[in-house]
Amino acid sequence: MTVGALGERGVLARVLARFTGAEAASVGPGDDCAVMRHSGDIVVTTDTMIEGPDFRLAWHDGFELGWKLAATNLSDVAAMGARPTALTVALAVPHDTPVVLLERIAEGLDAACRALAPGCGVVGGDLGRAPVVTAAVTAIGDLDGRAPVLRGGACPGDVVAYAGELGLAGLGLSLLFAEAADGDGIAHDRALPRLWATHPEVLAAQLAPAPPIPLGVVAAQFGATAMMDVSDSLSIDAERLARASGVGIDFSAEHLLASFGEQQGVPVPLTAMLTGGEDHGLLATFPAAIELPSGFHRIGAVVPSGAGTSLRLDGEALTAQGWDPYTVRLPGADAPSASTVVP
Amino acid sequence: MTVGALGERGVLARVLARFTGAEAASVGPGDDCAVMRHSGDIVVTTDTMIEGPDFRLAWHDGFELGWKLAATNLSDVAAMGARPTALTVALAVPHDTPVVLLERIAEGLDAACRALAPGCGVVGGDLGRAPVVTAAVTAIGDLDGRAPVLRGGACPGDVVAYAGELGLAGLGLSLLFAEAADGDGIAHDRALPRLWATHPEVLAAQLAPAPPIPLGVVAAQFGATAMMDVSDSLSIDAERLARASGVGIDFSAEHLLASFGEQQGVPVPLTAMLTGGEDHGLLATFPAAIELPSGFHRIGAVVPSGAGTSLRLDGEALTAQGWDPYTVRLPGADAPSASTVVP
Repeated sequence: MTVGALGERGVLARVLARFTGAEAASVGPGDDCAVMRHSGDIVVTTDTMIEGPDFRLAWHDGFELGWKLAATNLSDVAAMGARPTALTVALAVPHDTPVVLLERIAEGLDAACRALAPGCGVVGGDLGRAPVVTAAVTAIGDLDGRAPVLRGGACPGDVVAYAGELGLAGLGLSLLFAEAADGDGIAHDRALPRLWATHPEVLAAQLAPAPPIPLGVVAAQFGATAMMDVSDSLSIDAERLARASGVGIDFSAEHLLASFGEQQGVPVPLTAMLTGGEDHGLLATFPAAIELPSGFHRIGAVVPSGAGTSLRLDGEALTAQGWDPYTVRLPGADAPSASTVVP
Repeated sequence: MTVGALGERGVLARVLARFTGAEAASVGPGDDCAVMRHSGDIVVTTDTMIEGPDFRLAWHDGFELGWKLAATNLSDVAAMGARPTALTVALAVPHDTPVVLLERIAEGLDAACRALAPGCGVVGGDLGRAPVVTAAVTAIGDLDGRAPVLRGGACPGDVVAYAGELGLAGLGLSLLFAEAADGDGIAHDRALPRLWATHPEVLAAQLAPAPPIPLGVVAAQFGATAMMDVSDSLSIDAERLARASGVGIDFSAEHLLASFGEQQGVPVPLTAMLTGGEDHGLLATFPAAIELPSGFHRIGAVVPSGAGTSLRLDGEALTAQGWDPYTVRLPGADAPSASTVVP
């Protein structure tokens, strides 16, 4: 059954049946807007995933895609020190898309909310038609009366810390391009069962990441001075944080390797940690005097802004590398860019 | 200059420079999330517009497109009886898109907020890459302590009223398909200057509608029992409101023609009012005893739910007609559906 055969109302009914709701929603899907109960300041963020540049259906099943859509937006909310309360989802798909794909996306969205941010859920959305599968998610969170943790608050002397997986998602993408794509970069699904059997950790990290969402609030409670989620790569995103704060960041290879050199039994090289994107873990800075909250690992130090460079590794200048959706060269006609990870 | 040549950071800087901000935002674009100050319950809605099904760049310039994106989401907020406070915008475009198109979209979004919902503005968003221009907007509004006006509150005996333009946008779409499309429905811009000179009212209504956003709050203050914005068509959306309320709606041809038979000097036939979409005016029901707020016009009555049909015109069964993004037949390969308006 395709969405074209079923029509908007039928598709909507099937998709909405997959959502279990959000605690803070007094009106859920079905009206012009959802209605949400919040006590004070809220945070809001939007992120889009588009078939081709951002994912391939040969690699992602619908459930994983929905999960990743939720996870990538929940991590932006967490990175403000907020508690996610609601998602809205705009989905547009080709006329001949099987309805089951939309049902699986909805199931993945709902499952990720329940697993990563209990109480949060999908409260509304929009269905439309597009030449490729297109999904835009907006996430809302409640600061519960706390001040937001911004990018611009890091001070020289602060500890740089990270929570979550680091580099695994990039290794997963590299593996997929190496083993599940034709020579010209076009994705196929022939090797997927074998890859899931041999490399489940990096595939899961890439296709359905599980960032530590509750640690965003914990970091705020511990006094994090700056925080952001790592989406493009640790080096690119750390450079953004450093610029916003007017400081430099000096990573420690020893600390990075000690905490992240092996994750879930997978050896992760330093290059993958620094240039692999899409883990969506939390990069935060804390005053040196405090104990880091459990789950965060020290990976460097905030230093004064240096001449010409804001990023260092063991004191040497480091060039940020990772993902730019517009400038990156695509390996195939409709295939997406890989990030620059080399495992 | 294309977005591919300029890169994400450069494009973002140019786009963000077009936004004048939102009163309720304490943190605007540039961090993981925006931060918004609200006093209590909020409303949230998402809507997508995609080149092809939803608009054609041969007809829309970027400014009009941005304006329409804002207007269509603001009207959903208004339809809850809420005051719009913020938009987030996810834009994805092909690699070779001129940067100026994104700048004009941003200018249109900002201008529509300032004109239609002063105090509201764009607080965040996302830039990405897609095979066609794809825009998803989320709007947030503040209920300022009032209860939301839902679709399900209409009672038999209530007056059915409408505020805004009705049918003009559909007439504009029909005109464009008749005069600015090839035989197979592919849009072109050759006739646009002539059409803007001869039919500015219907073109503006279709390409950059200006729904009466502040009347949403006014309707709530006057005690509206149900409300929604009319996006697909008056008949389709009235049927949704009637179903949600468990009632029927009986339109009065006399009242419709008296208030909407001529708009801005343009004669509008009854068929266009009932089946033309995209005006984004407000359909509301009010207790019969109260005076209608200025700007709303009586167009019918809420009646008990009848056997088999929820929609009537002067007592006779009326079939809802308008837009379904999945089932409607497209006139050309990448061309969008017309609604069923025949002027």
